[in-house]
Amino acid sequence: MKELVVVGSGPAALTAALYAAREGVGVTVYEKESLGGLAGTIDVIENYPGTGNVTGAELVGKMREQAESFGAEFDYGEVNKLEDRGDVKVLTVDGMEVEARSVLIATGCARRKLGVPGEAEFDGRGVHYCAICDGAFYKDKKVIVIGGANSAIQEALFLAKFASEVEIVALFDIMASGVLRGRLEEAVKSGKVKVNTYADTVEVVSKDGKVVGVRVKEESGERVVEGDGVFVFIGLVSTTEFLEGSGVELSERGFVVTDESYETGMKGVFAAGDVREGATRQIVCAAGEGAAAALVIGEYLGE
Amino acid sequence: MKELVVVGSGPAALTAALYAAREGVGVTVYEKESLGGLAGTIDVIENYPGTGNVTGAELVGKMREQAESFGAEFDYGEVNKLEDRGDVKVLTVDGMEVEARSVLIATGCARRKLGVPGEAEFDGRGVHYCAICDGAFYKDKKVIVIGGANSAIQEALFLAKFASEVEIVALFDIMASGVLRGRLEEAVKSGKVKVNTYADTVEVVSKDGKVVGVRVKEESGERVVEGDGVFVFIGLVSTTEFLEGSGVELSERGFVVTDESYETGMKGVFAAGDVREGATRQIVCAAGEGAAAALVIGEYLGE
Repeated sequence: MKELVVVGSGPAALTAALYAAREGVGVTVYEKESLGGLAGTIDVIENYPGTGNVTGAELVGKMREQAESFGAEFDYGEVNKLEDRGDVKVLTVDGMEVEARSVLIATGCARRKLGVPGEAEFDGRGVHYCAICDGAFYKDKKVIVIGGANSAIQEALFLAKFASEVEIVALFDIMASGVLRGRLEEAVKSGKVKVNTYADTVEVVSKDGKVVGVRVKEESGERVVEGDGVFVFIGLVSTTEFLEGSGVELSERGFVVTDESYETGMKGVFAAGDVREGATRQIVCAAGEGAAAALVIGEYLGE
Repeated sequence: MKELVVVGSGPAALTAALYAAREGVGVTVYEKESLGGLAGTIDVIENYPGTGNVTGAELVGKMREQAESFGAEFDYGEVNKLEDRGDVKVLTVDGMEVEARSVLIATGCARRKLGVPGEAEFDGRGVHYCAICDGAFYKDKKVIVIGGANSAIQEALFLAKFASEVEIVALFDIMASGVLRGRLEEAVKSGKVKVNTYADTVEVVSKDGKVVGVRVKEESGERVVEGDGVFVFIGLVSTTEFLEGSGVELSERGFVVTDESYETGMKGVFAAGDVREGATRQIVCAAGEGAAAALVIGEYLGE
C-alpha cells in the first residue's frame, strides 16, 4: 500500500511530492499526459520568483528532478476513480486498483472550450488550446486567437513570433495586466497583431475539410474572420470528472472543496493548487499550496 | 503619494513586489537590514521548487532582480509606525513620513531568544542566531547549538563544516524531518556532532569576558556544556512591534490577523508570508501568499 498518491503533475503536485518525499513519506505521482499540467505548456514564465525567465517545461522539469532526488516516484497513468474504504483509499489507475493511505488531488485546470459548431470536429487539426504545443505548425500563416484576458494576450504575442499575422477575437474588452497591454500595443503598432473586441465567436468555419476562419457576431452583425488556425484561450475549467460519485465534495463549478488545511470532507483525501475551489491560479501560489498540503498530510500519516 | 508600500524584503515581500509592479502598480519595498529576511540567511535551500539547490542569498537576489525588472523600487529604511488616515496610510520610515494608498506588511519572523542570563550580554560576540552570518568565526572551534527542530538540525549540520565539534542541546527530543534525521545520524556517527536531549538551557556561562558554554538542567541535575560559541534556533517570533497601537489587529502571539484575502481589518492594509497569523512558514508558501496578496491589492487600487 502506498503512503501518498498525488494525482496530477503540475506545480502543486510536484511541490507536494518534493516536500512529502523530503519528510520521508513514500509518494507516487500519477501524471496523465505530459509533465507539468498547464504550467508545462507556457512559453516564457517571468513571474515565478527566484528563477528569472524560464520556460514552463524547464520549470516543471526542475521541480520534478528535485522531488525525485528525495525519492518521489513518478508513473504515467490516468486516475479514473477514487473510492473511500475508511483508512484505505482505492484509486483506479488505467483500470488497475491502487491502494493508498492518503491522496492529494492536484489535477489543476484544463482550458475551457468554446462549445460552438466546428470546434470539436477540428480539435487538434485547426483548433488548438496550447500555443507552445501547436504554434509552430502555423509558421508564416495567419492565426486567430479567441480570448481577451492575460493568457490570451500572452499566447497571441507568442504566436506572433511564428505566424504571419495574429488576429485576436475577444468577447469583451481586453482585460490584461499593464505589462501585457503595453506589449500588445506595440505588436498592434507593428501591424503583426490585430484586435477585435466585443465579438462573439459563434462557429469555426471550414472549407474542403480545413479550417478557414471563425464566424463572429458583433453589434453590427455577423462576419467571418479569416485564419488558418484557431487558438482558444477563454479561461479554465475543472478536471474533476473522475471524482464524480466518489463522495469528494465539488463546488458548483466543479472544483474541489477543502477546509483551510487542504483536506476534503473525505478523511485522508486532500487537494491543492488550481483544482481547489478558492485557489489563486498562479504557479507560485499552486506550489505554495502543494508544500503546505504535504506538511498537513505528513502530520495525518504520522497520527 | 505611493501606490503600494511593502514593509519587509523576504520572499513574500519580493514576490508581491514582482506581481504588483508587473500589474503596473507603483511599488516601493522598505528593507530594514539585509535583503531577504530569514530566507536570505539560509546556507542551502533544497526545498524551493524550481531552482534546485540554491543559497538563500542567491534566491532572494534573483527574486529582487525580477521585481526590479518590472519597475519595483527598493529603499533601505525601518518602518517604525503605521497610521490610518482613511484612504491614505502614513508610514514613519526612519522618522520620515511616507504616504501610501496601500500597505503590505511582510516583515516575516525573527529568531526567538532564550531569555536566560548571559544571552543579551554576549549577543553577537558568543551568542548568535544565524549560522551563515556568524558560523565562519568558529572555524576549528567548538560550538553549541540550542534547539531540536528542523532549523536547529540544519544549522548544526552547516556549522559542522567549520567547527571542530558541534554539540546540540535540545529541550525535548529531536523533531526533524526524515532527511535531516538521516544526515544527523551520519554526523553523530562520524563523531563531529553530539546530541543532548531533554536538556533545558538556563544560562550562558562566561569566563574573563568570553563565552565558555551553557548551563543545562537535566533530569539528573545541572551541568555545563562547554563551547566557544552558542547558536540559538528555538523557533520564531513575530516582528510586529511597529504595529502596536496602529489599530491593525495582532494575534496573541503577535502575528497579523487577516481575512482569506490577506486584508487586515484596516482597509487598504494587507499582510502576507510568515508575519501573517496562520501562515505555513515555508519559503514557497510565503512567496505564494505574496503573489496572491498583490493581486488582491491590484484590485483594491483599481476600485
